[in-house]
Amino acid sequence: MIILGVDPGTIFTGFGIINYDKNYFTLITNGLIKLPSTKTIPQKLELIYDGLDKVMKTYKPDEFSIETAFYGKNVQSAMKIGYARGVSILAAVHNNIPASEYSPREVKKSIVGTGAASKEQVNYMIRTILNIKKDARMRFDESDALAIALCHAFRMKSPVKKSKDWKSFVEAFPERVIK
Amino acid sequence: MIILGVDPGTIFTGFGIINYDKNYFTLITNGLIKLPSTKTIPQKLELIYDGLDKVMKTYKPDEFSIETAFYGKNVQSAMKIGYARGVSILAAVHNNIPASEYSPREVKKSIVGTGAASKEQVNYMIRTILNIKKDARMRFDESDALAIALCHAFRMKSPVKKSKDWKSFVEAFPERVIK
Repeated sequence: MIILGVDPGTIFTGFGIINYDKNYFTLITNGLIKLPSTKTIPQKLELIYDGLDKVMKTYKPDEFSIETAFYGKNVQSAMKIGYARGVSILAAVHNNIPASEYSPREVKKSIVGTGAASKEQVNYMIRTILNIKKDARMRFDESDALAIALCHAFRMKSPVKKSKDWKSFVEAFPERVIK
Repeated sequence: MIILGVDPGTIFTGFGIINYDKNYFTLITNGLIKLPSTKTIPQKLELIYDGLDKVMKTYKPDEFSIETAFYGKNVQSAMKIGYARGVSILAAVHNNIPASEYSPREVKKSIVGTGAASKEQVNYMIRTILNIKKDARMRFDESDALAIALCHAFRMKSPVKKSKDWKSFVEAFPERVIK
């Protein structure tokens, strides 16, 4: 299963794609959509949408994952992040990719173990989990995007809460049934 | 010149289209895109984009106008309004319609004369300016959208600040030149 995580911003929009197969996570790619300060807001939104649309058409992810919530206090900043997230989600909808949302705290907790982790800690853990070389360049926007994709993979990996009855539990965990 | 004003929200997105020709303003149409509470955020964003895209392809506006800024204190609300505004602006970009932004205060001031005007006052003034019958139903989302379109028309009507020299002034106001 291919999962695309996106961390939209108005200066950089980071994206990361992982493959999740039989409990193994592998990096497919990561990258940045650069949004020059000379561009207007409408132009930046077009760059984000077009960039992600191209990524989706190239790598054909099965799942799309993005952060919701905003922890700052500035409502104007929250609104501008909203612009970027809105067009990112729309790109997923237009490509028929199911979209999942996680709070930044959930993402950090699932990767580092604490919701208050720093971007440096997230970056370090992402390199460890996905076996990325220490000298490979990876901006925080990219490691955050990969963290969002991994968070979604971890959630899908542990569907315990979704097992409402024995039948679905047995289907989800055939190895745990004593025959 | 046809101007489309949009007031995006996550329950209703209002739109209004006016024609501005030789200092006369006429109503072309106004309407609502309803966003049922049973829909997910990605589905709502698709409804807003698709609805506005259809309106743009039907009425072919020359200009697109939208509110920026947000006066509430709740950052999560600001972000969700941002989602809706982001996909609205993207619809304009994809239809090659230039987008202009005004603050809610600017819009109210241009229509009612005060930036602190109520939605009722805006609705009343819109009906007066556009000669809309008193018994015609028009929600605040629609009158706000028409106000945003009219605000843009008023700004285009008085390009005094844009006249940097006599030549451009004479071109903008030929009737004010004594021959």
